[in-house]
Amino acid sequence: MKTISVLGSTGSIGTQTLDVVRRHRGLFHIAALTAGRNIDLFRDQLREFSPALAAVQNAEDARLLAAEFPGTEFSYGLDGINKIAADNDTGMVVNALVGSMGIAPTYEAVRAGKTIAFANKETLAAGGELIMRSVKEYGAKLLPVDSEHSAIFQSMQASPGAEIKRIILTASGGPFRGWSREQLRTVTKEQALHHPNWSMGPKVTIDSSTMMNKGLEVIEAYWLFGVPYDRIEVVVHPESILHSAVEFTDGCVIGQMGCADMRMPIAYALSYPDRLDNIGESLDLFKLGAMHFEKPDLSVFRCLALTFDAIREGGGATAALNAANEEAVRAFLNDKIEYYRIPELCEEALQHHVSRPIRELEDIYEIENNTRGYIRQCLG
Amino acid sequence: MKTISVLGSTGSIGTQTLDVVRRHRGLFHIAALTAGRNIDLFRDQLREFSPALAAVQNAEDARLLAAEFPGTEFSYGLDGINKIAADNDTGMVVNALVGSMGIAPTYEAVRAGKTIAFANKETLAAGGELIMRSVKEYGAKLLPVDSEHSAIFQSMQASPGAEIKRIILTASGGPFRGWSREQLRTVTKEQALHHPNWSMGPKVTIDSSTMMNKGLEVIEAYWLFGVPYDRIEVVVHPESILHSAVEFTDGCVIGQMGCADMRMPIAYALSYPDRLDNIGESLDLFKLGAMHFEKPDLSVFRCLALTFDAIREGGGATAALNAANEEAVRAFLNDKIEYYRIPELCEEALQHHVSRPIRELEDIYEIENNTRGYIRQCLG
Repeated sequence: MKTISVLGSTGSIGTQTLDVVRRHRGLFHIAALTAGRNIDLFRDQLREFSPALAAVQNAEDARLLAAEFPGTEFSYGLDGINKIAADNDTGMVVNALVGSMGIAPTYEAVRAGKTIAFANKETLAAGGELIMRSVKEYGAKLLPVDSEHSAIFQSMQASPGAEIKRIILTASGGPFRGWSREQLRTVTKEQALHHPNWSMGPKVTIDSSTMMNKGLEVIEAYWLFGVPYDRIEVVVHPESILHSAVEFTDGCVIGQMGCADMRMPIAYALSYPDRLDNIGESLDLFKLGAMHFEKPDLSVFRCLALTFDAIREGGGATAALNAANEEAVRAFLNDKIEYYRIPELCEEALQHHVSRPIRELEDIYEIENNTRGYIRQCLG
Repeated sequence: MKTISVLGSTGSIGTQTLDVVRRHRGLFHIAALTAGRNIDLFRDQLREFSPALAAVQNAEDARLLAAEFPGTEFSYGLDGINKIAADNDTGMVVNALVGSMGIAPTYEAVRAGKTIAFANKETLAAGGELIMRSVKEYGAKLLPVDSEHSAIFQSMQASPGAEIKRIILTASGGPFRGWSREQLRTVTKEQALHHPNWSMGPKVTIDSSTMMNKGLEVIEAYWLFGVPYDRIEVVVHPESILHSAVEFTDGCVIGQMGCADMRMPIAYALSYPDRLDNIGESLDLFKLGAMHFEKPDLSVFRCLALTFDAIREGGGATAALNAANEEAVRAFLNDKIEYYRIPELCEEALQHHVSRPIRELEDIYEIENNTRGYIRQCLG
């Protein structure tokens, strides 16, 4: 039986992780859960899974829940999450946190030598260099939960150790596929929050519409699979059926396909190297009829182009880009800026960023803080 | 260095096998070659690869070549091929023979415990039960060379030992995809010999146009991968880019894609479990644009429907069907019958066949001979 901690259990990935666990009670034990402010749902999860440890965002919630669930030890804040990430009694940590706050718990789990199933793409976008160095140093293991990276990882299993000629990273293209730069100036929040294929949280949905999401995934693939960025090809595939693929040096492409159901990559990360039964629906190729592929327009989807620039630059540029994007998306969701300002602010922040070596988590925090400060200044 | 015998070296698969070997001289040594009547090409191959053993169809050719190539030991006929198949000095046998004559050498190689890369789908269509029983008994190993079976095999490597929920066996649909049964009555030899995607020998090309080829592949997959026939789904995919796929019990589908180049599956069989560099061209998904999928029409492509009937029936029915098809295709290629008579004759032969247990190669031969006799009788 695998003992699992789920960081961010009330979010989209967190709830689906618990759904997979629910279907395979005999295989998994939930040792710890953490949540932010969705205390109602968290209360249900605590009741159902009775974890030994739990953490929430603030002290007051922790105090109230502790009185209600005497069998669970509560903590709060980032320190509380970090403690759970590094806890000795857990074999696997599922990092389902959204945004750059996910990096510290990942780092803690890595330094505790854990197996980490991570859906938090900001972790590698901001701290790829540091995290991957530590993974080697502490003998930790990263298992991707993102559907694309899971697909790449699953495909790579077909030829363990073989050289990768190219990663084919598919993208739905989001709701604005085929739009011109001019058209993107008119986008409303409602339009941007409506994704054609996947049901996700608001931050990820906006990132998907700007293709920043795909850019962060390029960075993630770059660090996770150790493949040069010019061998990562982003392919727009509106049906989101081919979740991604890998080309080997003999010209053979192995890809993973399936319905749009995050429980499949989650289940694979939980059960790797085995597979679980009864997770996702069967793919009906007859009903599907066709899969289409097209080149992303980097002159329209500037965020995607910027991520390649940031990887090329190195020295914390991807951390700056990620932080700038978080601030810009937050401002957009709070009706502070127009949609088209998101890539503009990201580009300005990247130009403002000064490259520096990344030695510790603090170096990343400083870059993030500088960038956030710069963006807030831009927003006046 | 792998020591390889190529049975049928002057055919389409044989020449492409030698092309792969030519690109990786340091990895492979050609120990033996066999050919039928294409002595001019065979002479070039003997000169280039200097095998220790060689066999041709008739004694006279063997005698002439022996005088010309004193370093090579020649034999002839099926006995000659069988001898080479079982030879102790060879590690791997590539069976690139066309038609049911391929079964005996496969059987010999299996009983010698060899690793056999086989492109000869008639082997398992006619003798699947016997061959697979012997593979277990003698510890032999079968590696598929057919692009579809190689794709399935490659995909299965992604989760060794995992249960297969479904095999997705793709089919180009051939030149008559979308045609009605009525339209098939008008087909000429020229039309049937023109395949849209693959360049293959005449027998295979005709089989591809009737979809008997796909039927034989269903039988092959059934035996090779041990999957019940109702879990083998034939999907028409006109672009022939997804070469086939496997669905696991979690709903994830792993598939192999690539350009239409037989050297890729050949190379994979030769180098398994490793991969070779520099074999096929990279897949250009942007140029491709789309992959389409549709259901095969079993009321039009009767040969495909008949293969499922034959598997269900067992007791040598697939051997009868395969022999009937060989006779019918030969008759069509020799302008003895109209195109639409191929499935009709196959169906009649299947009705005429009496099920029986298959204990030895002779049981298969008897079924084949009975069937061929019956077809010749039908042809008057």
